[in-house]
Amino acid sequence: MTVVSVAHALAGKYPEGGEVTVRGWVRTVRGSAGLAFVNVSDGSGFAPIQVVATDALGNFEDIKRLTPGCSVIATGKLVKSQGKGQSFEIQGERMEIVGWVEDPLTYPIQPKPMSPEFLREVAHLRPRTNLFGAVTRIRDCLAKAVHRYFHENGFYWISTPIITTSDAEGAGQMFRVSTLDMANLPRGGDGGVDFGQDFFGKETFLTVSGQLNVEAYCLALSKVYTFGPTFRAENSHTTRHLAEFWMVEPEIAFADLSENARVAEEFLKYLFRAVLDERADDMAFIAERVQKDAVTRLEAFVNAPFERIEYSDAITLLQKSGRKFDYPVEWGLDLQTEHERWLTEEHVGRPVVVTNYPEHFKAFYMRLNDDGRTVAAMDVLAPGIGEIIGGSQREERLDVLDARMAQFGLDPAHYQWYRDFRRYGSVPHAGFGLGFERLVVYVCGLSNIRDAIPYPRAPGSAEF
Amino acid sequence: MTVVSVAHALAGKYPEGGEVTVRGWVRTVRGSAGLAFVNVSDGSGFAPIQVVATDALGNFEDIKRLTPGCSVIATGKLVKSQGKGQSFEIQGERMEIVGWVEDPLTYPIQPKPMSPEFLREVAHLRPRTNLFGAVTRIRDCLAKAVHRYFHENGFYWISTPIITTSDAEGAGQMFRVSTLDMANLPRGGDGGVDFGQDFFGKETFLTVSGQLNVEAYCLALSKVYTFGPTFRAENSHTTRHLAEFWMVEPEIAFADLSENARVAEEFLKYLFRAVLDERADDMAFIAERVQKDAVTRLEAFVNAPFERIEYSDAITLLQKSGRKFDYPVEWGLDLQTEHERWLTEEHVGRPVVVTNYPEHFKAFYMRLNDDGRTVAAMDVLAPGIGEIIGGSQREERLDVLDARMAQFGLDPAHYQWYRDFRRYGSVPHAGFGLGFERLVVYVCGLSNIRDAIPYPRAPGSAEF
Repeated sequence: MTVVSVAHALAGKYPEGGEVTVRGWVRTVRGSAGLAFVNVSDGSGFAPIQVVATDALGNFEDIKRLTPGCSVIATGKLVKSQGKGQSFEIQGERMEIVGWVEDPLTYPIQPKPMSPEFLREVAHLRPRTNLFGAVTRIRDCLAKAVHRYFHENGFYWISTPIITTSDAEGAGQMFRVSTLDMANLPRGGDGGVDFGQDFFGKETFLTVSGQLNVEAYCLALSKVYTFGPTFRAENSHTTRHLAEFWMVEPEIAFADLSENARVAEEFLKYLFRAVLDERADDMAFIAERVQKDAVTRLEAFVNAPFERIEYSDAITLLQKSGRKFDYPVEWGLDLQTEHERWLTEEHVGRPVVVTNYPEHFKAFYMRLNDDGRTVAAMDVLAPGIGEIIGGSQREERLDVLDARMAQFGLDPAHYQWYRDFRRYGSVPHAGFGLGFERLVVYVCGLSNIRDAIPYPRAPGSAEF
Repeated sequence: MTVVSVAHALAGKYPEGGEVTVRGWVRTVRGSAGLAFVNVSDGSGFAPIQVVATDALGNFEDIKRLTPGCSVIATGKLVKSQGKGQSFEIQGERMEIVGWVEDPLTYPIQPKPMSPEFLREVAHLRPRTNLFGAVTRIRDCLAKAVHRYFHENGFYWISTPIITTSDAEGAGQMFRVSTLDMANLPRGGDGGVDFGQDFFGKETFLTVSGQLNVEAYCLALSKVYTFGPTFRAENSHTTRHLAEFWMVEPEIAFADLSENARVAEEFLKYLFRAVLDERADDMAFIAERVQKDAVTRLEAFVNAPFERIEYSDAITLLQKSGRKFDYPVEWGLDLQTEHERWLTEEHVGRPVVVTNYPEHFKAFYMRLNDDGRTVAAMDVLAPGIGEIIGGSQREERLDVLDARMAQFGLDPAHYQWYRDFRRYGSVPHAGFGLGFERLVVYVCGLSNIRDAIPYPRAPGSAEF
């Protein structure tokens, strides 16, 4: 018994005419006199394989009763398929029925179009659909390409802490992590909660970013990155926000903003090339059913040199555009999605890196430019999505950093460790952050970011 | 200016006699009349490169004042080294001093042996030491080998939820995640905390395992795995426990316990081979300074076929061993570390897979064997560490699962989604879990698991 994956069988990795065994779940069954055509999927690739069963099989009566979702082990001869769109099929010699579907009429996953809204309600079964099978394989391809790009370019992976005592952004809503008995909280002398009795002996939260932590490794190993979950307790119940999401954060020693932008461009193109090369089957489905230009826009992306525009010039361009925007355009105000999309989609028609933003709405750790009013920050904007990457050169001068922390009202004592990197062999360095689910949303043409995470509803992702 | 990594320069990837630039941090400086030998590390590999500076350099007086930790950019001719143990060195033509060390006498990272205990106190600077540089690169190598093994074998990566409403083990202490104002908790009608007002509208925790969630994907994509952080709020402040750690959890459809053990063996050997092949430099240091047999024991591991022993036979062997153990040996009691180490280190002398444990001390989801008193569980034991992997075949029969849940006092309503997999095309499946930091501890010969995590103390991992 040569057990093979459906993907390998369809790809012609086994000799024509040889006997193979596939194992998986029934997608569809068609029958005619003395024949049953059973499409079997094992999720190894997008397409199922057709197994042709005849009434010569001892359990043919059972095979005719198969419904979508049943599990089978099918053995037979691998032959060229006569049907269009299929390379190979299996002339069934044996088909063991492993698991039936209890009450097929109420089985939630039917071979018909189902809305993402409905499927979010049966999230533990949605991986069995075409769409979520494709999204899962594309997500896997992107994640592995992330690690491979960094490996090939000499970056080391650092898993920064999830439970933390600090807020890396100096702002933002965080989730508290605690083992205190909430029905009976210990109180301190001042009547406040006594976090000294909590698990770690202090108040702790879920991290919002690994950046500050990963800088410690950057200033020793030169090229490092995080790829792990981060958390934001923002009450933005939109189709674009998640409370729990994965983030990629490289950090590069001796890099300035220009080098940072170069790496961001090379990195994104590497990821999209990987999807085009390795998941053509799933992308073809996405293009057919979800987003018409899903493939062509990735191809355009990997072939387009990124444009670079200073924030100040972007403001001028927007003001001269003749376009009426909902939000005001003025030097000193942040760019809104409508502005970003005009820049990248209409004005340039390619990805754009906007650089050197006003210092007052950017984070304290971004390097102050010589003009004293902008920082070496960058946002990468892409047609069809807007901002996809944000980054900056970091402030490596201790005196400037201290002044910036004072300006932001941050306590230097709390950041003593971060100041240390500037006291001991400080070097210019830069990095950026990429929200991994945003990337999946873009590649798969999804309209709700909740469809980019693999979590079943129960027992559950809190996301539902 | 050809900027090169120190690792590439030492590996002879650039022409001898050509001009190169390296950027990094000073490890040591030695001087003699008119000469300075500056060892520069950029963390790209274990070894620093020696830059020879002469008093022909304009800033030679400054170069002589360099101390460990200063950052430099050095340019010069790459030449074969006369010194032993060094392949190449650089005849310095220019050396820019980028960052000084403030008060070198109190700089914590000195070029002398420092205890791990001390370095845990300056965790944000410890990546600059030989030991933690090596551990970081080995950890990276292992993590990338995890993804690569699964990629080459057709497994898809699934990021299961971190914030969850369920306890995958049916037991164990969990961290609560909340945004409620603890100083002013909302109360329900019964006086208890009203979690309906919490961020997700219910009580939520940090996950202890992604296994139950990843099964949803296994029963659609056949071969899947998680690799992400998990959390245990156990008050075990030992050198072997972490509250926050990364776990690898593959799940394989149509696999029984024997196939599960085969994959576990192949997987571990793949990881160790990767370390031996790719991090010979760091492993040589580990063998020299940390654990004498670090390399030879990995080599033995990858060459040894795993032994398989039934739990019942292991009990008999232990009872007949003539050894006096601290803990009792009796059918129905769990194996203790001393028993596991006797089995793998003394009795077999190779890794051992112990299978089919008594059902009453294993989890509810493990498949009940036909004897009715054991389950298809397995533990992989290895010389030098004891248990390194735990796994099982899962109970795929709905009626047996329901009976087991009743036995464990679990509410079936809470596991309805998990029961669904057994109602709709159920198949045999199996999987295992590998604590990633345990693996790092083993490979690097560390005596405290806190040295296997990359977290700086501040702002901080809660681990310190």
